[in-house]
Amino acid sequence: MEGVKLLDFWVSPFGLRVRIALAEKGVEFEYKEENLAEKSELLVSANPVYKKIPVLIHDGKPVCESLIIVQYIDEAWSDKGPALLPKDPYQRAQARFWADFVDKKMYECGTRVWKSKGEAKEEAKKEFIDNMKLLEATLGDKPFFGGDVFGYMDISLIPFACWFYSYETEGSFSIEEACPKILEWVKRCKERESVSKFLPDPHKVHEFVLFLKKRFGIE
Amino acid sequence: MEGVKLLDFWVSPFGLRVRIALAEKGVEFEYKEENLAEKSELLVSANPVYKKIPVLIHDGKPVCESLIIVQYIDEAWSDKGPALLPKDPYQRAQARFWADFVDKKMYECGTRVWKSKGEAKEEAKKEFIDNMKLLEATLGDKPFFGGDVFGYMDISLIPFACWFYSYETEGSFSIEEACPKILEWVKRCKERESVSKFLPDPHKVHEFVLFLKKRFGIE
Repeated sequence: MEGVKLLDFWVSPFGLRVRIALAEKGVEFEYKEENLAEKSELLVSANPVYKKIPVLIHDGKPVCESLIIVQYIDEAWSDKGPALLPKDPYQRAQARFWADFVDKKMYECGTRVWKSKGEAKEEAKKEFIDNMKLLEATLGDKPFFGGDVFGYMDISLIPFACWFYSYETEGSFSIEEACPKILEWVKRCKERESVSKFLPDPHKVHEFVLFLKKRFGIE
Repeated sequence: MEGVKLLDFWVSPFGLRVRIALAEKGVEFEYKEENLAEKSELLVSANPVYKKIPVLIHDGKPVCESLIIVQYIDEAWSDKGPALLPKDPYQRAQARFWADFVDKKMYECGTRVWKSKGEAKEEAKKEFIDNMKLLEATLGDKPFFGGDVFGYMDISLIPFACWFYSYETEGSFSIEEACPKILEWVKRCKERESVSKFLPDPHKVHEFVLFLKKRFGIE
């Protein structure tokens, strides 16, 4: 039962958050790729409520929901590696607010960009860019969302960078044009080994999006 | 700019969380009831992303999203009153998981119970009871969700107790019958002044639900 095991799926931005957080902390883990079409008994028993990846299993105890897992990693290995959340309560609240915004707004909207058509696609694109601009304004001229140090909010957002090409290709727009500072931030994040070693090739992500579109019958 | 101000709405379970957390910590605050039909400039400027209550304004700095606010209160006044989140990282993750479950599943489902009709209402009722049973199983025979001490997860769920009557009346079912331990837990929570002094009368909540139904044209 001892050790750290991660139930995950290669292209999941939520799973990538956990991989990056573990790497930042220098925590070794066993990676277990799930077949989402035929979920393992381990996944179903470790996350009976949602039956979703990622699940982190630490010494036999499962932790679910990516943002909760990243906070768990920060707290369980508080003596290892850098702190992921800032110390100041207000800064922590800000980091949590924007990470939550990524889940509530950006992700959902990005999915609509490639899943929808016509009018709905145009709406999704507009909303997606508006959301990205809010994120860009929050980043401002800081190197990272929390200031000088790569942390919780960066970890929450950076996995989506490998989905940007898909959003752009499917939606025919340029994130760089709308949000140049976000693209600069992506480059800075990618200089970190914790990020570069896990983020899949954007073209492979797009192949996966095309596979999903075919499966869902979206032309 | 100094002091603690809460932008809120009397019947909001999310706002109630914040009021209860502040009372648990013994933090005095100025309560500002919002007219949600005509939101104040202060609300719109303090929460430009969602324009929603509750917003806690501490020394001029706004914190939004109820669960983030409760964590902020726990951290900003860590030297005051009891700790709301447990100390153990795994217990913290569990508390966060179930609080998040209340937001993602229970609340949404409860709203469907009174907003929907026919088949959809029956589905919502079934789902609502299933969710409550998951919560009851998590509570088990403990006095509170975290064990012997009233804390974060209790604060996340208890405001909905004043909505139970509305869910039951609109859905024609009994939460007590399905989940007797949850009702025992509600009684225990209500023994706390922090809870009893803020939770509105369930009949007044139901009057509000009837007002909303009329407004939304739901018969």
